[in-house]
Amino acid sequence: MKLYDYWRSSAAYRIRIVLNLKGLAYEHVPVNLLKAEQRGGAHLARNPLGLVPALELDDGALLTQSMAICEYLEETHPEPAILPKDPLARAQARSFCTDISGEMHPLYNLRVRKYLSEDLSHPAEVVDQWYRHWTVWGLNALEETAQRLPDRGGYLFGDEPGMAEAFLVPQFYNAHRFDIDVSSFTRLGEAYENVKDLPAFKQAEPEAQPDAE
Amino acid sequence: MKLYDYWRSSAAYRIRIVLNLKGLAYEHVPVNLLKAEQRGGAHLARNPLGLVPALELDDGALLTQSMAICEYLEETHPEPAILPKDPLARAQARSFCTDISGEMHPLYNLRVRKYLSEDLSHPAEVVDQWYRHWTVWGLNALEETAQRLPDRGGYLFGDEPGMAEAFLVPQFYNAHRFDIDVSSFTRLGEAYENVKDLPAFKQAEPEAQPDAE
Repeated sequence: MKLYDYWRSSAAYRIRIVLNLKGLAYEHVPVNLLKAEQRGGAHLARNPLGLVPALELDDGALLTQSMAICEYLEETHPEPAILPKDPLARAQARSFCTDISGEMHPLYNLRVRKYLSEDLSHPAEVVDQWYRHWTVWGLNALEETAQRLPDRGGYLFGDEPGMAEAFLVPQFYNAHRFDIDVSSFTRLGEAYENVKDLPAFKQAEPEAQPDAE
Repeated sequence: MKLYDYWRSSAAYRIRIVLNLKGLAYEHVPVNLLKAEQRGGAHLARNPLGLVPALELDDGALLTQSMAICEYLEETHPEPAILPKDPLARAQARSFCTDISGEMHPLYNLRVRKYLSEDLSHPAEVVDQWYRHWTVWGLNALEETAQRLPDRGGYLFGDEPGMAEAFLVPQFYNAHRFDIDVSSFTRLGEAYENVKDLPAFKQAEPEAQPDAE
């Protein structure tokens, strides 16, 4: 498999973690977002939305969207599982992941920050405040959601780290990068601390990627 | 089951279609977004993000996020299926749905339009242009994606209408509502025309809901 990837993309970071958790080898193909390679013809042929990651299977088929890629990997390589078995817990785990990937992340994706700065002429501090606003909004809600979950030990939805941790960790990485105080998010912080030094997570870190600058 | 819903919410509209496709009865409980009921304590207890829809099961468990709700309904009520059986086609259908629910929709959700108008003091025409920009950006990519799919007849991913149509139709409804020209999106338009008058889709239309104004 080939992962079309960018070291700092949090959506790609999620997939690197999941591939590592499942012990699946892949070739890393960088798409430099700062050079707008994601909007070039080669990448638009992989994903018309011009987003990373895209996962190319050995037969050349292309998968996009981090949630859809995770579901595919879970269906085709079920062990170790990254979703719980119980339908309700599965739904809760998927909802937790989607709160990150489909509510928080799209709001401060590079394309949106560019629209704010270039099309709407906002200075950097307004764009930065936009980022912080939606991050804190989302993390507050995720913390509340996590607090309500049954106590399953260290992990959010099961006995092993799974999709929820794979989506949470890149979010915490971004929060740290932008100096957002996460100390009040105690349950999320506990879930983060429980996994961040596991090899599957360490090896997926942005700074560990070959295209890191 | 109870669906916490708002007649014009496109995320809730998706779930109404899917519940109808699966022949599942539900009680409709309106949450008035224009009166900010989604940010009141009663609804935040259902979903800390303050979003609709939320689906309450008969035992009181609550499900949030339209993708996660659809996956739950598919797992617990598999027939008629709303996702194809083949893992690759399932991944493509999920990616198509997520392009709508997790890339387009969050950008022009009510909370974002309020931030643009209230926090950033943009006039209505700038907010309107924001809405159009991201709708056209997304529909262009979805049309390209749809054009590349194998021709399966009228429906996007199978012999029956499924999740992809349930996510597409509310998007077209919104585009029509905001006078966005969709005539160039020919494959999407065909998929829309093929389902829009089916009872499952007609009965889910915003204007057919008890809280429609």
